[in-house]
Amino acid sequence: MDEKLNALFNPKSIAVIGASPDPSKLSNAIFKRLIDNARKGLLKASVYPVNPKYERIEGRKVYPSVLDIEGEVDLVIVTVPAEIVPEVLEEAGEKGVKAAIVISGGFAEAGRKDLEDRISEVVRKYELRVLGPNTVGLVDTYSGVDTLFTPRIKRTERGEELVNVLELKRGNVAIIAQSGALGVSIADCLTEENVGIRAFVSVGNQLDISVEELLEYFSEDDRTRVVMLYLEGVRDGRSFVEKARLASSRKPVIVLKAGKTDVGVKSALSHTASIAGDIEVYKGVFKQAGLIEAEDLEEFMDFGKVYSMQRPSRGGRLFILSNSGGMIVIASDAASLYGLQMPPLSEERLSELEELKRKGIIPKFVSLSNPLDLTASVSTEGFIRTFEVISQDPNYDMFLIIPVHSTPTLNERAIREIAKIAKEREKAVAICEVGGSPWSKLFRRISNECGIPSYPTPERAIRALHALTLYSGAKEDRAALKELI
Amino acid sequence: MDEKLNALFNPKSIAVIGASPDPSKLSNAIFKRLIDNARKGLLKASVYPVNPKYERIEGRKVYPSVLDIEGEVDLVIVTVPAEIVPEVLEEAGEKGVKAAIVISGGFAEAGRKDLEDRISEVVRKYELRVLGPNTVGLVDTYSGVDTLFTPRIKRTERGEELVNVLELKRGNVAIIAQSGALGVSIADCLTEENVGIRAFVSVGNQLDISVEELLEYFSEDDRTRVVMLYLEGVRDGRSFVEKARLASSRKPVIVLKAGKTDVGVKSALSHTASIAGDIEVYKGVFKQAGLIEAEDLEEFMDFGKVYSMQRPSRGGRLFILSNSGGMIVIASDAASLYGLQMPPLSEERLSELEELKRKGIIPKFVSLSNPLDLTASVSTEGFIRTFEVISQDPNYDMFLIIPVHSTPTLNERAIREIAKIAKEREKAVAICEVGGSPWSKLFRRISNECGIPSYPTPERAIRALHALTLYSGAKEDRAALKELI
Repeated sequence: MDEKLNALFNPKSIAVIGASPDPSKLSNAIFKRLIDNARKGLLKASVYPVNPKYERIEGRKVYPSVLDIEGEVDLVIVTVPAEIVPEVLEEAGEKGVKAAIVISGGFAEAGRKDLEDRISEVVRKYELRVLGPNTVGLVDTYSGVDTLFTPRIKRTERGEELVNVLELKRGNVAIIAQSGALGVSIADCLTEENVGIRAFVSVGNQLDISVEELLEYFSEDDRTRVVMLYLEGVRDGRSFVEKARLASSRKPVIVLKAGKTDVGVKSALSHTASIAGDIEVYKGVFKQAGLIEAEDLEEFMDFGKVYSMQRPSRGGRLFILSNSGGMIVIASDAASLYGLQMPPLSEERLSELEELKRKGIIPKFVSLSNPLDLTASVSTEGFIRTFEVISQDPNYDMFLIIPVHSTPTLNERAIREIAKIAKEREKAVAICEVGGSPWSKLFRRISNECGIPSYPTPERAIRALHALTLYSGAKEDRAALKELI
Repeated sequence: MDEKLNALFNPKSIAVIGASPDPSKLSNAIFKRLIDNARKGLLKASVYPVNPKYERIEGRKVYPSVLDIEGEVDLVIVTVPAEIVPEVLEEAGEKGVKAAIVISGGFAEAGRKDLEDRISEVVRKYELRVLGPNTVGLVDTYSGVDTLFTPRIKRTERGEELVNVLELKRGNVAIIAQSGALGVSIADCLTEENVGIRAFVSVGNQLDISVEELLEYFSEDDRTRVVMLYLEGVRDGRSFVEKARLASSRKPVIVLKAGKTDVGVKSALSHTASIAGDIEVYKGVFKQAGLIEAEDLEEFMDFGKVYSMQRPSRGGRLFILSNSGGMIVIASDAASLYGLQMPPLSEERLSELEELKRKGIIPKFVSLSNPLDLTASVSTEGFIRTFEVISQDPNYDMFLIIPVHSTPTLNERAIREIAKIAKEREKAVAICEVGGSPWSKLFRRISNECGIPSYPTPERAIRALHALTLYSGAKEDRAALKELI
């Protein structure tokens, strides 16, 4: 692992260059966030404000330049205007700083490639590693490094104080995003779904630290189980394929490619100065590199969630269990469209389920098959006992459970018990619950809390389960690779 | 309009046959619901319990048979066991009842076609109209007829009382569903999104009253703006096409076809005894009939929502406005994939926007184009004033607004003002807000409350806007029609 790159995530000391006492400045938000994390014991690094204009900020001594700080500085966070960034980084290089996060915008994306060239010189001269420019930076939920300057709480027009972005919780999903706002929104959505985040990194213009390098970094990181990559374009196709292939040989990498169409390509260019390129070429590259491509933003988040909570699946043999015939029809259609097989019940399972009927645990009139409709009359106990029977069957790799909450006889114990059994038996399970009522939300929330990904429609649950079959490690076909790049 | 069919929705008197004082029985739930609606003044009809076993239920006199009721009875709701249903309906016919809702199951879907044949005889003999059997019945939010027996409040395992299904609010969406549980779930989702429901009808086995007839009914109904049809299969293809074509010449009809694959077809057969048939034939029929087909359950609900809140669009010329470059890239891709055009800004609009820049209302560094990225620095006022400028342009039929909530400078006034302008100018607008935080939910909620449909991803918003271009009334090509059926 590159020690300097690692300083981005695990610095012993941090300087915020351009720190301001003015609460309307983003440098103020970043500085306060860091000292707050340090106070809580989450961040172990020392934090220094740097700004020639001020003497004290938040009761701390302010340094005119990073060169004035007595101790070593591992990481600088730069928020000064674009024109000054090169000289500020020059000083950081001189100081022996390992890595810099350049939040400031106004570079290649605004026609100032010249400023980026000057930063590149500094990067070469001092071997300083730079994230950005034009980035919101990163959040590492383990080390407490957090440069997000979005307000945590915001007041509405009517004066109510509401949470603006959710506090990320520790977890196993690494998000690499070529868009700050989008990355923040994705992390926010996942957090609401009880998905824990290992780290979120916004790469900005990728002047130095690239998507590829971060892919490699997280593939070697033990806390990361799945990497989510929002990509507008890559600089170096060959290097991307190599690093992506390596990363995906170690763990699942989900990719969402934006800039797929001419209009999108133009937007990406003005957004992060990315050359988005031909989507068909990209699709080929993703496939060769073993990446799992999501078709849209919703799929991207759904896939991230399923891989955070479940292991990749060796096969696509599915069992569908519900108490609603309509849900089963829709889910069966989707399963079939995605090529998931639905093997029939074995003689053994059939006789065990007949036994449940005889004992009055499930309704006598239930017709035993895969998919299995336990009907609206089934009890919580009957639902659980049925899952106990079918989940032991080696003929099934994955289970879609659609326990429509609204019947009088079904309650949330079904979800908890199914989750318990699924964990013991290491079975891939997704739950679907359609609805907007508090009970419906309770079913989805408990499911997520128990580590069973829940989805609000059968098709989304099926797509997520199908995605679990798409990971197979790297495909070592170097010859085919050469043709592609 | 068929007067007898109308008695389903607007009866002057209702008898609940099989009414029970036992709160665990669904007949009890239905009876209580109806007298509750009558007490509230929502339901104007008289409600009679019928059951030879009891004398009084909820303090009301119980009649041994519908024949014992002194006054006229327009509608009977039947919950007795399948075997007794034919004779109970015979009595209803004798009494001169106009319509019956048969909630009871255990007919063709359970191999008892013979019982349905006996009901058909009664239907012919008395010209009694029958909804079901094997249905959860219907909800009419205007007349107060409501046969849903799902508990409104349910106690969790831990003893908390939670709302189980949301109370539907009055509105303009009619839902016709060939699955009770699914229909209830769909209505629940839409209600949570602030979409009002005109009526929800579960057709069950369609022994007598068919999907086609209900399509016709709602197409003539002034309170209905859009019809949502969840279809597993139809009995009479020719009649379906005729009625569907007629309905869609009057208003948009959104259809979700389930049972698209062999597995789905089999499930549909055991669910509602429907012959699901070849999906390609169906797709052709839908197209000919002018129906708008949704690909999956999520699209179905998204389309229902957009048509409830917006008018069909004459063209597909789109403007995208956001404060996030990443969102714009994704939205532009989706727009392009769906064939929506994005005409550039006219000279007039450009000069008006330049004026906003000069006045410092929008940031000077914003690059003026369609799509338009106002950047994270834009203020609430700047966002509103920009929409004011572009929304007056006759070159655009529709607007996608992605006002990422998390920037310090944007608040919910932007949504309210944009909605106001959009209404005045009768422009089709959708809002996209991605996130899970309270602020994110506030943006989506306010948008829905203001009648601007909100979506949690750019692609879903684009698909919904695109759906607005799909309605064009009926296509009167009888010759092509004949080839199809």
